[in-house]
Amino acid sequence: MIISTKKGTPQVELDRIIDNFEKQGLSVTLIRGEDYNVFGLVGDTTKIAEKDVLANPWVDNVTRVSAPYKRANRLFHPEDTVIDVRGVQVGAAAPVTVMAGPCSIEGAEHTMRMAQLVKAGGATMLRGGAYKPRTSPYSFQGLGTEGILDMVRAREATGLPIVSELMDEAHIDEFEEYVDVVQIGARNMQNFQLLKAVGKMHKPVLLKRGLANTIEEWIMSAEYIMAGGNEQVLLCERGIRTFEKYTRNTLDLSAIPVVKEKTHLPVIVDPSHATGNYKYVQSMAMAAVAAGADGLEIEVHDNPQCAWSDGAQCLKPDLFAETIEKCRLIAHAVGREM
Amino acid sequence: MIISTKKGTPQVELDRIIDNFEKQGLSVTLIRGEDYNVFGLVGDTTKIAEKDVLANPWVDNVTRVSAPYKRANRLFHPEDTVIDVRGVQVGAAAPVTVMAGPCSIEGAEHTMRMAQLVKAGGATMLRGGAYKPRTSPYSFQGLGTEGILDMVRAREATGLPIVSELMDEAHIDEFEEYVDVVQIGARNMQNFQLLKAVGKMHKPVLLKRGLANTIEEWIMSAEYIMAGGNEQVLLCERGIRTFEKYTRNTLDLSAIPVVKEKTHLPVIVDPSHATGNYKYVQSMAMAAVAAGADGLEIEVHDNPQCAWSDGAQCLKPDLFAETIEKCRLIAHAVGREM
Amino acid sequence: MIISTKKGTPQVELDRIIDNFEKQGLSVTLIRGEDYNVFGLVGDTTKIAEKDVLANPWVDNVTRVSAPYKRANRLFHPEDTVIDVRGVQVGAAAPVTVMAGPCSIEGAEHTMRMAQLVKAGGATMLRGGAYKPRTSPYSFQGLGTEGILDMVRAREATGLPIVSELMDEAHIDEFEEYVDVVQIGARNMQNFQLLKAVGKMHKPVLLKRGLANTIEEWIMSAEYIMAGGNEQVLLCERGIRTFEKYTRNTLDLSAIPVVKEKTHLPVIVDPSHATGNYKYVQSMAMAAVAAGADGLEIEVHDNPQCAWSDGAQCLKPDLFAETIEKCRLIAHAVGREM
Amino acid sequence: MIISTKKGTPQVELDRIIDNFEKQGLSVTLIRGEDYNVFGLVGDTTKIAEKDVLANPWVDNVTRVSAPYKRANRLFHPEDTVIDVRGVQVGAAAPVTVMAGPCSIEGAEHTMRMAQLVKAGGATMLRGGAYKPRTSPYSFQGLGTEGILDMVRAREATGLPIVSELMDEAHIDEFEEYVDVVQIGARNMQNFQLLKAVGKMHKPVLLKRGLANTIEEWIMSAEYIMAGGNEQVLLCERGIRTFEKYTRNTLDLSAIPVVKEKTHLPVIVDPSHATGNYKYVQSMAMAAVAAGADGLEIEVHDNPQCAWSDGAQCLKPDLFAETIEKCRLIAHAVGREM
Repeated sequence: MIISTKKGTPQVELDRIIDNFEKQGLSVTLIRGEDYNVFGLVGDTTKIAEKDVLANPWVDNVTRVSAPYKRANRLFHPEDTVIDVRGVQVGAAAPVTVMAGPCSIEGAEHTMRMAQLVKAGGATMLRGGAYKPRTSPYSFQGLGTEGILDMVRAREATGLPIVSELMDEAHIDEFEEYVDVVQIGARNMQNFQLLKAVGKMHKPVLLKRGLANTIEEWIMSAEYIMAGGNEQVLLCERGIRTFEKYTRNTLDLSAIPVVKEKTHLPVIVDPSHATGNYKYVQSMAMAAVAAGADGLEIEVHDNPQCAWSDGAQCLKPDLFAETIEKCRLIAHAVGREM
Repeated sequence: MIISTKKGTPQVELDRIIDNFEKQGLSVTLIRGEDYNVFGLVGDTTKIAEKDVLANPWVDNVTRVSAPYKRANRLFHPEDTVIDVRGVQVGAAAPVTVMAGPCSIEGAEHTMRMAQLVKAGGATMLRGGAYKPRTSPYSFQGLGTEGILDMVRAREATGLPIVSELMDEAHIDEFEEYVDVVQIGARNMQNFQLLKAVGKMHKPVLLKRGLANTIEEWIMSAEYIMAGGNEQVLLCERGIRTFEKYTRNTLDLSAIPVVKEKTHLPVIVDPSHATGNYKYVQSMAMAAVAAGADGLEIEVHDNPQCAWSDGAQCLKPDLFAETIEKCRLIAHAVGREM
Repeated sequence: MIISTKKGTPQVELDRIIDNFEKQGLSVTLIRGEDYNVFGLVGDTTKIAEKDVLANPWVDNVTRVSAPYKRANRLFHPEDTVIDVRGVQVGAAAPVTVMAGPCSIEGAEHTMRMAQLVKAGGATMLRGGAYKPRTSPYSFQGLGTEGILDMVRAREATGLPIVSELMDEAHIDEFEEYVDVVQIGARNMQNFQLLKAVGKMHKPVLLKRGLANTIEEWIMSAEYIMAGGNEQVLLCERGIRTFEKYTRNTLDLSAIPVVKEKTHLPVIVDPSHATGNYKYVQSMAMAAVAAGADGLEIEVHDNPQCAWSDGAQCLKPDLFAETIEKCRLIAHAVGREM
Repeated sequence: MIISTKKGTPQVELDRIIDNFEKQGLSVTLIRGEDYNVFGLVGDTTKIAEKDVLANPWVDNVTRVSAPYKRANRLFHPEDTVIDVRGVQVGAAAPVTVMAGPCSIEGAEHTMRMAQLVKAGGATMLRGGAYKPRTSPYSFQGLGTEGILDMVRAREATGLPIVSELMDEAHIDEFEEYVDVVQIGARNMQNFQLLKAVGKMHKPVLLKRGLANTIEEWIMSAEYIMAGGNEQVLLCERGIRTFEKYTRNTLDLSAIPVVKEKTHLPVIVDPSHATGNYKYVQSMAMAAVAAGADGLEIEVHDNPQCAWSDGAQCLKPDLFAETIEKCRLIAHAVGREM
């Protein structure tokens, strides 16, 4: 951590700063300039918050040189993490994984049919929402436990592991028992209470990036889960909020090489929520595989116009199968199975 | 709601659309153009999601003409809502209210001293965090129940009602018993589970705007709380995330006249979290009062360099008192008490 | 164009609105609702500005149904435009083109060497800046005419057509004489004076997307050039400004399918300026080709640490050649030459 | 400037870095850490670009400690700059100035009437556009020289100095002869060619902040003008682009205290373009004065529905007069004339 102080900071204040950090076990070096002084701190600074250092009115600027995360940091864990989901491997050189299914679970029969269709089209896991975060209190809020059990039955029939979103600590036992990958939605990425709770679970967690969160904040949220003891975290890029209006969000594919440089965790891309428009899903799925994504999460529905939520971004089963076929060609071009 | 369809949409598809909406009790008018057709829907469209209509591949564009909120909508509730917090009125022509105190509660003695100092400086309520949302799992997470009880004792001594952030449904009973205004933080603005839970509480709720949420989404989150039965919602603007780096966030003061036009709820402004820098708090507090804010939430600490969190944005007690004095002159200039 | 008016708008005002638009040759249909009225306009609305309609205080909302551009609009020009640059075809099924070279031109000898190196690595055109837009007046501003002539000599030796940025109308004759593709930089995307001037040129124009411009505004700027008579416009995505800090800008690859749907113009992607970091250029170049880009613009330097500008994002020649090789495999996977 | 290098950087590379900076006359100190090394540079670093330093693959991070601007920097010019516009003083303790008038100049008679109306309502200068930057090539582009001469006649009749936007170097002589304040629009804030040209003019320049430019970039553009010899720069905040949709842009009033801390230049606020809606102009004008703005720029039209551009944001003359009256009360409350 590097700290610069203002021109004219009295010696007694400089001494106080040095003293303060030395007490915390850090070694401090002072560089004197004409217009300012600079301190370099060496040691473990993960517990020091930049904002607190800035509280000193003599301090001008604080820069963190080393990353504020440890468990997620590739520096201390150079090998890629591979996560096993009921026998499906994700990460490193494992085949590109495909989580697919409807946005909302819509009953036993429909779920079973969709599971069979996405499996035929190339999916390796079934995704579906039983508890739905909705902007309006007047919108459909999901089938709840009934929806989870519909997915369990579809898993029994198809063998596809199931991925579903957890919104409430109250359902942790249910998810621990039935669900294979616990999804944390974008709006809950900094619901620290929930992150601590899933940090104690024994299931892999798919952590979606928040609409307006930096990659660093996203990794810090993974760190929350990992600090709780659960190191099986999959990071999922799903578009960030910008001023652009032709797409719902802006898919940030450069997050893929950045996350792979900074961490050892697998990266999944969700082109459906990112674009909000089925017409743009195929090309973004292909781009994600080309950029090195370890998996895709794609919404599929056999009758999007009647989907209970988010129909505009759903692929029909045949377009889904075509998309996976094209992605597979890209995967092979980059030397990977799919 | 206005829906436009693509050039060349077959008549059978147009009929299907009309039929579908008429079944939902809406009246539908069709305008035929050369390059497109437009449907106008008349009736209650709050339950229809734009995204679902867009699932129809013949649909090009959907525009919501009437707002998606009802209870918060000034159209159906023209008078300003006034909220009573243990005898302190907020909203309409009531005096501009001032919630002040430390970011984190730091023990009984400090809380008592801070309560007395902010009261002397012009505060009408005491704010303080007992449960703290922190980006890093390694940062201080708050004193919990002990902190809440410290605030209760300070209230007994000074008479100031207390404001504190709720992060977890598990603490609802504690907040119902002890706290006067339940704060929902920016990061939980779309934690719909928590919104539903506070919708059943009997205490006023201070709903902070999310870092990257539009005013419409913010009002929809208020609607969640109100739909649950709790109509005592205070909206708090605290800065939005932009590309600017000299301030932590960008304080959106134009939200004040917008919220006052669209809703009947009181608006509070938090210049401390918005700017992230104590040097800019005073001028932003003054601007907020000039723009018509019903209240301010300001962080105050007697020794910011040693604050347990967010020291950089805390005012010292004398600068706080000076700020309130200057705001009072502005309040009088706009014909309001403070 | 769809216009909604407020509840309680008097009949005389509704009549006035209808009358006003009918005088402009539009046909107007009125839909009456309980809480509002809606007008649908049919006819050519490209000359009507939404902002002007909103000036009527009875108007609540204006939605443009048809796009405000004509010449760039795929609706009126369904086939892909192919642009010929001294024999190199760009767009439609033509091979993916590669514009490569140093950020700034650094003298005759260096330009010649770089031209040979990028040609060997797979480039089809040479890019280089002779006039440089720099944030600081104290930074190097480019070699000017001398730099342009260095590029001309490199073209003679290698056959590569040359691409360079025009910042000033005063240099139009020079560019018309020497340069093959006239680049308009992101910061000048809405320098309408300059757009009108290049609209009268006879050379293809590479129009970079502005840092904070929507895709619609970008297409409108292309429309400016095309309205002047020059229909040879290449659109270049180079990253937009967001809150993310690990990359310089956020590369918006979803712009590729959007632009291809809305317009008939070729799309080029510049991963160098988008990411600002050579480590992320290769994966973003591969993703761009997978998503359907018609070309790439990449910065290459044989000694990035000593580059006269933007060294951090330059590829060394061997990494460039490897990148193009990998992109070629992707191009083949999507059925395209490169 | 502070530079950190990666773990494992060889000594020979560290020596090379030190040597390189020492040759540029800087003094360099090295702090060795376990996981990284840090260099502190002392001396004049305004000519070093962060991006160029980052080109060294051993470099991890670069932080600029001192600001990259000199002439605009309050550190080297502690007193507020006061600018004289034909006898009207702007800045420091001078009365809050008011630039008002129509968006576009609409002919001699209308300009004369508007000048008289805004003068009666409290304006100290007349603003009006003769050359208009328009997003669409099909929109009205301004009356040109004729419009400038209309303003000159209105100045003769009312004594109000005139403010108008310059879009093209070709009109510099005209502006030098007729116009009192040369406005550079938001879209041209980084049109460096134009900035250099006005840097040689002898008239004050009103530099609008770009839609997506940081305060630092805005000050750097002022620096461009000042480096050319013209130190009479007024900075004008007019809203930045964010995701919010209820207002056209987001007015960043915290820019006022930031600019006043970093520079010695006067700050003007334009609430009309910022909000894009006449209903929000009054409260934002009042907030701007409360926050310390040195002036306001407001659009006024006697018949906004028929304005040739931007009618939705124009105040009618009586609402304008009421707004200035209310702002005056705020100005007095903060100890300033208006």
